[in-house]
Amino acid sequence: MEKDPDKRFEIDEVIGRLCSMEDMRHVCPTRSGEGEPLLSNSAVRRIVELASRLMFPGFLTDSDRGPSVMRSVMTIECHELRGLLASQISAGLCFDKNQSAIPDADISRHAGSLADSFIDSLPDLRHILDTDIDATYLGDPAATSTHEVIICYPGFKATVSYRIAHRLLELGVPVVPRMITEQAHSDTGIDIHPGARIGKGFVIDHGTGVVIGATAIIGDNVKIYQGVTLGAKSFVTDDSNNPVKGIPRHPILGNGVVVYSNSTILGRVNIGDGAVIGGNLWVTRDVEPGEKLIQARADNFRSAR
Amino acid sequence: MEKDPDKRFEIDEVIGRLCSMEDMRHVCPTRSGEGEPLLSNSAVRRIVELASRLMFPGFLTDSDRGPSVMRSVMTIECHELRGLLASQISAGLCFDKNQSAIPDADISRHAGSLADSFIDSLPDLRHILDTDIDATYLGDPAATSTHEVIICYPGFKATVSYRIAHRLLELGVPVVPRMITEQAHSDTGIDIHPGARIGKGFVIDHGTGVVIGATAIIGDNVKIYQGVTLGAKSFVTDDSNNPVKGIPRHPILGNGVVVYSNSTILGRVNIGDGAVIGGNLWVTRDVEPGEKLIQARADNFRSAR
Amino acid sequence: MEKDPDKRFEIDEVIGRLCSMEDMRHVCPTRSGEGEPLLSNSAVRRIVELASRLMFPGFLTDSDRGPSVMRSVMTIECHELRGLLASQISAGLCFDKNQSAIPDADISRHAGSLADSFIDSLPDLRHILDTDIDATYLGDPAATSTHEVIICYPGFKATVSYRIAHRLLELGVPVVPRMITEQAHSDTGIDIHPGARIGKGFVIDHGTGVVIGATAIIGDNVKIYQGVTLGAKSFVTDDSNNPVKGIPRHPILGNGVVVYSNSTILGRVNIGDGAVIGGNLWVTRDVEPGEKLIQARADNFRSAR
Amino acid sequence: MEKDPDKRFEIDEVIGRLCSMEDMRHVCPTRSGEGEPLLSNSAVRRIVELASRLMFPGFLTDSDRGPSVMRSVMTIECHELRGLLASQISAGLCFDKNQSAIPDADISRHAGSLADSFIDSLPDLRHILDTDIDATYLGDPAATSTHEVIICYPGFKATVSYRIAHRLLELGVPVVPRMITEQAHSDTGIDIHPGARIGKGFVIDHGTGVVIGATAIIGDNVKIYQGVTLGAKSFVTDDSNNPVKGIPRHPILGNGVVVYSNSTILGRVNIGDGAVIGGNLWVTRDVEPGEKLIQARADNFRSAR
Amino acid sequence: MEKDPDKRFEIDEVIGRLCSMEDMRHVCPTRSGEGEPLLSNSAVRRIVELASRLMFPGFLTDSDRGPSVMRSVMTIECHELRGLLASQISAGLCFDKNQSAIPDADISRHAGSLADSFIDSLPDLRHILDTDIDATYLGDPAATSTHEVIICYPGFKATVSYRIAHRLLELGVPVVPRMITEQAHSDTGIDIHPGARIGKGFVIDHGTGVVIGATAIIGDNVKIYQGVTLGAKSFVTDDSNNPVKGIPRHPILGNGVVVYSNSTILGRVNIGDGAVIGGNLWVTRDVEPGEKLIQARADNFRSAR
Amino acid sequence: MEKDPDKRFEIDEVIGRLCSMEDMRHVCPTRSGEGEPLLSNSAVRRIVELASRLMFPGFLTDSDRGPSVMRSVMTIECHELRGLLASQISAGLCFDKNQSAIPDADISRHAGSLADSFIDSLPDLRHILDTDIDATYLGDPAATSTHEVIICYPGFKATVSYRIAHRLLELGVPVVPRMITEQAHSDTGIDIHPGARIGKGFVIDHGTGVVIGATAIIGDNVKIYQGVTLGAKSFVTDDSNNPVKGIPRHPILGNGVVVYSNSTILGRVNIGDGAVIGGNLWVTRDVEPGEKLIQARADNFRSAR
Repeated sequence: MEKDPDKRFEIDEVIGRLCSMEDMRHVCPTRSGEGEPLLSNSAVRRIVELASRLMFPGFLTDSDRGPSVMRSVMTIECHELRGLLASQISAGLCFDKNQSAIPDADISRHAGSLADSFIDSLPDLRHILDTDIDATYLGDPAATSTHEVIICYPGFKATVSYRIAHRLLELGVPVVPRMITEQAHSDTGIDIHPGARIGKGFVIDHGTGVVIGATAIIGDNVKIYQGVTLGAKSFVTDDSNNPVKGIPRHPILGNGVVVYSNSTILGRVNIGDGAVIGGNLWVTRDVEPGEKLIQARADNFRSAR
Repeated sequence: MEKDPDKRFEIDEVIGRLCSMEDMRHVCPTRSGEGEPLLSNSAVRRIVELASRLMFPGFLTDSDRGPSVMRSVMTIECHELRGLLASQISAGLCFDKNQSAIPDADISRHAGSLADSFIDSLPDLRHILDTDIDATYLGDPAATSTHEVIICYPGFKATVSYRIAHRLLELGVPVVPRMITEQAHSDTGIDIHPGARIGKGFVIDHGTGVVIGATAIIGDNVKIYQGVTLGAKSFVTDDSNNPVKGIPRHPILGNGVVVYSNSTILGRVNIGDGAVIGGNLWVTRDVEPGEKLIQARADNFRSAR
Repeated sequence: MEKDPDKRFEIDEVIGRLCSMEDMRHVCPTRSGEGEPLLSNSAVRRIVELASRLMFPGFLTDSDRGPSVMRSVMTIECHELRGLLASQISAGLCFDKNQSAIPDADISRHAGSLADSFIDSLPDLRHILDTDIDATYLGDPAATSTHEVIICYPGFKATVSYRIAHRLLELGVPVVPRMITEQAHSDTGIDIHPGARIGKGFVIDHGTGVVIGATAIIGDNVKIYQGVTLGAKSFVTDDSNNPVKGIPRHPILGNGVVVYSNSTILGRVNIGDGAVIGGNLWVTRDVEPGEKLIQARADNFRSAR
Repeated sequence: MEKDPDKRFEIDEVIGRLCSMEDMRHVCPTRSGEGEPLLSNSAVRRIVELASRLMFPGFLTDSDRGPSVMRSVMTIECHELRGLLASQISAGLCFDKNQSAIPDADISRHAGSLADSFIDSLPDLRHILDTDIDATYLGDPAATSTHEVIICYPGFKATVSYRIAHRLLELGVPVVPRMITEQAHSDTGIDIHPGARIGKGFVIDHGTGVVIGATAIIGDNVKIYQGVTLGAKSFVTDDSNNPVKGIPRHPILGNGVVVYSNSTILGRVNIGDGAVIGGNLWVTRDVEPGEKLIQARADNFRSAR
Repeated sequence: MEKDPDKRFEIDEVIGRLCSMEDMRHVCPTRSGEGEPLLSNSAVRRIVELASRLMFPGFLTDSDRGPSVMRSVMTIECHELRGLLASQISAGLCFDKNQSAIPDADISRHAGSLADSFIDSLPDLRHILDTDIDATYLGDPAATSTHEVIICYPGFKATVSYRIAHRLLELGVPVVPRMITEQAHSDTGIDIHPGARIGKGFVIDHGTGVVIGATAIIGDNVKIYQGVTLGAKSFVTDDSNNPVKGIPRHPILGNGVVVYSNSTILGRVNIGDGAVIGGNLWVTRDVEPGEKLIQARADNFRSAR
Repeated sequence: MEKDPDKRFEIDEVIGRLCSMEDMRHVCPTRSGEGEPLLSNSAVRRIVELASRLMFPGFLTDSDRGPSVMRSVMTIECHELRGLLASQISAGLCFDKNQSAIPDADISRHAGSLADSFIDSLPDLRHILDTDIDATYLGDPAATSTHEVIICYPGFKATVSYRIAHRLLELGVPVVPRMITEQAHSDTGIDIHPGARIGKGFVIDHGTGVVIGATAIIGDNVKIYQGVTLGAKSFVTDDSNNPVKGIPRHPILGNGVVVYSNSTILGRVNIGDGAVIGGNLWVTRDVEPGEKLIQARADNFRSAR
């Protein structure tokens, strides 16, 4: 490679410009100084991995840990989980400018307490995820076993991440829940906001392109296919043409609802128990319990031949 | 971090609850004991990487192996591939509860034999993938070389994974093919079931959101754009409202068919040779050879101004 | 594992067949010999990571580097960036068969010069990305801070990669820009061609399935939702039924345009300043400034009950 | 780096010559083929590390495992120890040409059984090592605690390795014991043959250059300083001028013996209980119990001034 | 590998016995609980490496950091050094039972302050090490440059470690200094107690087997060859036959003294300025300034022929 | 950890002082600038490891490469060896201030040529090392096979490093040979200068403390025990009291000589063919062929009892 002794000073100059920009506006995001924990995408990934391995011991692992050491492995990983989680919750509390109610000196203790509460709820999370596994297995003609669902299905993977993130959000953890669901979004193409409320026996099939908004409410035993959006209604904006914030704005789906691929349901509408929404539909009104919506015409095309 | 000596016992208690749940239903998935190979997502990823590198030596590599060591590298990687593949096939055979025809003592030998058969078919896989590369290059105005297709194109990446997985499925390998295509699904947003049958010269452009079902049959020189679903027809369910299993339920596409973005074709319909399906369509009936379907109206909207 | 001494020769035979195929057509892609840099997906990933960390110091990092070492870290990473970038640009120049204007002996120097030019433009890239951050934060009711946008939002991540890739393309770097945007495509489901021209204050929400073509032109303060395609018009093919290459073929969007989820805009149409395209639409004609398009009917379905 | 396409063939030629040499005489050391475990210096190092950590939990570790996970860590490391040990014992049994009494099919089972026996004796090894720690602490004016002995003292480190290796030798494990003591030799400069028999309360101070031969017998509470050799008598050779093999040829030291620095004791002599051998002496005869040997003259020099 | 389901319980039983032994006597060495730093040999190794790299930038490094980033690298490594050092000093303070003067709550602050003091003295350490380098280069006919001394010479390496350890001991750091010199002992065969006091221009040639005791005092420009012991006089023991502790017991060497290979000097004797001790001597009395001691006879042998 | 925002500036100040010292005297050792290869102890270690593995394929490896891939592994490792060696030779040529005969532009080519020459001589090195193995096996009653010699014996390990280093010195490579032998010195306690000339069938037993000087000449089938020094005569100094440089100053040993433990032979004396030097002797005169030297008296002590 060619050498350029003058290049050093140019690089210094570029960095100087970048630093002066940084000093102006996007200052270092922790409210405290040197040594504070920072939000870390890799730590958050590991948190989800550890929580998943604890809930499904023997499945989501690459190492051939046999049953004789499984409980020891779980103990060590649970301690690792607690440490990482407490650290990332601390980072989240420092990060969130609105969390000023907690004094600096109490952040570490508070974060540890939230991490404990999360770990205490792992058996409950596992319990509801078992209902998701069963529903996925029963509803997919291609699934050969419940084990395959745990190992392979992106819909289940996104649901695991959502349920972890939602539990953390319930506990008041800032930022980290959103990082968790965005990582699952990246892995699966399924974008579930941690604020959504979703009942047991939830199934997402294929799943790429699914979007479930922050105030959506979904009952038990609901099934959703790829490309489905449960979104906020368009055109509802404030004076500055920005969406209105903080109000319930996403659909409510009753128990047993099915939404087929690429359909869009917008706004705070009610989809009644047992309703079925066919594929490729655009729904912005309430749907009665048991109602079945299908394409207005069997085919929306004409032949150009 | 604060310390809490009592925390140890709480963690033990949580793990106790998780283990008792595990004992009840989702017991360790191998049918044999300590030391058996487990299914491993990272091993399966490495298998696809090795098979791809063997088929396209000099391309899909990060190291600057020059030509003088290429054949030596291929030899070593081929042995690594055989070892990993035999191990994951073994794990898959142990995992699949329906594979009981093979006695435990024969699983390792059988897995090795299947791995050998797969490696023997690498040149054939490479041959058909060459036709996919050529078709992609010729069909995309943005492609600057066939080499760029191999390195960059997600549609080609998904096709490589599908063809590897389909070959393993043909050989009777359980679970692993599905893991391979779901990994490609995560990487590309393209979900091709390994059971589908796809001819040569296959092209997927952009690809995010494509879904191709387990019993779909696709001819030669077919091209598919992003968001296309070749799915099972909705509403065909059994008494328990679950989809009917094990019957041909996805479309058959003839040679030279093109399906533009976001269109959905459902059910065991025949799309004849040379047919063209325009974008955003919803097709649930047979299409004649050479027929061209387009939007019923040029624009499906009205102005709100 | 069972052993098979004969297996060695079979593997040799398979490799022999693979090598002879390779010799015929897909010969090693560098135009020079042993020791030349090869295109490397992991190197390109690291390039994007380093450029992002330099533009947003203290954010996109897993390590807890405090402010006291930040400038030292930036200096070292900037040198690493320059080295990797020069090497990958060299590889790209060797790779591109049409780049024959540059003599072999000058490639390394030329690549170093391009890398320097790229680094010199990092503050400008940072400046425009700041406008994207602000627009995203203001436009999303769920965003709690601009920092959260940098850390979590896939739309912003895809925009960072696009702006880096577009700058490299402007400098005349072959192949590498496309590798960068395809990596972002894999991570976010958002496929922006590096050739597109996009103004400041750009926002993509959710984003899975978005496709923006190579000759698209997008004004300032445009917002796009998941599943939107800005594509080339279908059916415009040459004699061999392949798309016509090298001509402007994607839409032009004016300032302040909004395109809601899953809509498709095809061809070299003009969408005027301030126009709003509702969800799920299919647009192949010009749209007037300020025009608002919505579904032709509120709901495109009928009840099957 | 300069390139030389012809170099490839020269390298091939060199390797050809090396391989033909290897085929002639030093053929691959395992008696069986592909896939058999090989002796591995790094595996043997890990075995010693794991056994040491199990015997002194909380000491010989770099990670900050607190007491709450210590028992879980020990369980996992004990299983790792068993696996590595069984594998290296297998490799040793394959390696040793005289071990032909064990049929190939039984080697793996036999190795596992030997590994179990070794692990069963860890508490006993720990017990005798405790006496070595106490004796070292009491005998060294510079030792501040027994903990410091465990962490810092090379004499203790060599003794740990010797006692592990000696136990394996007692169990009939070939080659591995010698690998263990040679690794300690490399780390400490102390060369104790695993065949030597050494009582409790053993102390080596400083230790560099100490050599203790294969048939040496050492009583309880013996202390040895740097540079001491307990060797075979010189000049006892066979017709070919090679040392005579397989007969007791090293010294016997009684209880409570002290040997000061750089002294040499040669041949099957008896050093009685409580005898003290001063520094820099050359001893080839029996020494009475309680006898104290010192330099013949206080100083063995003259002034040249 | 064979499997034995009963083995799990045996391993549990062995660990139970080891834990009960541990509870009895060698309880976990830190005085505080979970989360406290532990002494770590690898951390201490890294401390010596970092301090050496800071003192000799550009020499003791494997990476090809050029001059343009050297100062940035030094800044980052200096912060890493401070963090590791403060942590290991904390661990040492917790470890040392006699250090009870410092309350638990102050240990972390005190350790940080000691780490700062050490870093402040790096330039002074560098200054005296420069005199050692010069003396080594001038005194060895085989040395081709001062740079070679820094990179290759074990005597210099041991001296660097000693001077670092001695400085820490002066600051009152427990245990860590001894760990540092024992690591150098393992690497070089040279055992210098950190308590020894050694003047500038110190040279050790070859060095294997050198032992320098805790209360030794060595003047300026002294040179010592392999196998030399500066030890405590033998036979000075207390009532329990253990060496008397805590009194000056090692030799004092004046300026310019040379001690040739394998000689032993014992007890609190004075070796006057400029004295020369020949090889293989045994010295237990004072030596006059300028005195030259040689073997009593030219050869200490007879011919057996 | 406590934080101290002022600390940053102190660290900057320390680094400033260290840099100004460095600028004065020990400037960066390469004669050229940014990007030149630097001497690297880890690269040199890898060079010795690779050369050893090529000479003894199947032995000095941790991985279980079976015979079927051995030749491929050797090819790749031989290329790695050539690359590392050429780079370190370049670094050595830049480093050595007396090597000015080679213009900067030719250093890389010259280094590559020397690396080739070294690799060409690997079979010859292997040939002479085979004689060392045989002699060690025959001469040690504890050796169970020639394979054990290769794997375990520090004397053989030191001899391998010496023969590699000596060959590089013969080729005119600066500095690197000395780095190689000092690494072996650290690992084995055996210090052989690469300049020494040593015949075939060379054996070192135990070995700790052995020193063989730069101008020593050793015949065939010589055996040396631990602690033996073949050194320069003492007291031969120049006016500045420094050793005289550049003249033959170490012993010449004939064929078949044996030197027992801890003996010292000094100066340019001749030890005739077949001579035997007993243990602990001090020899500064010629020894006749076949002469056997032993201690003047059987025991050099008196009883103090």
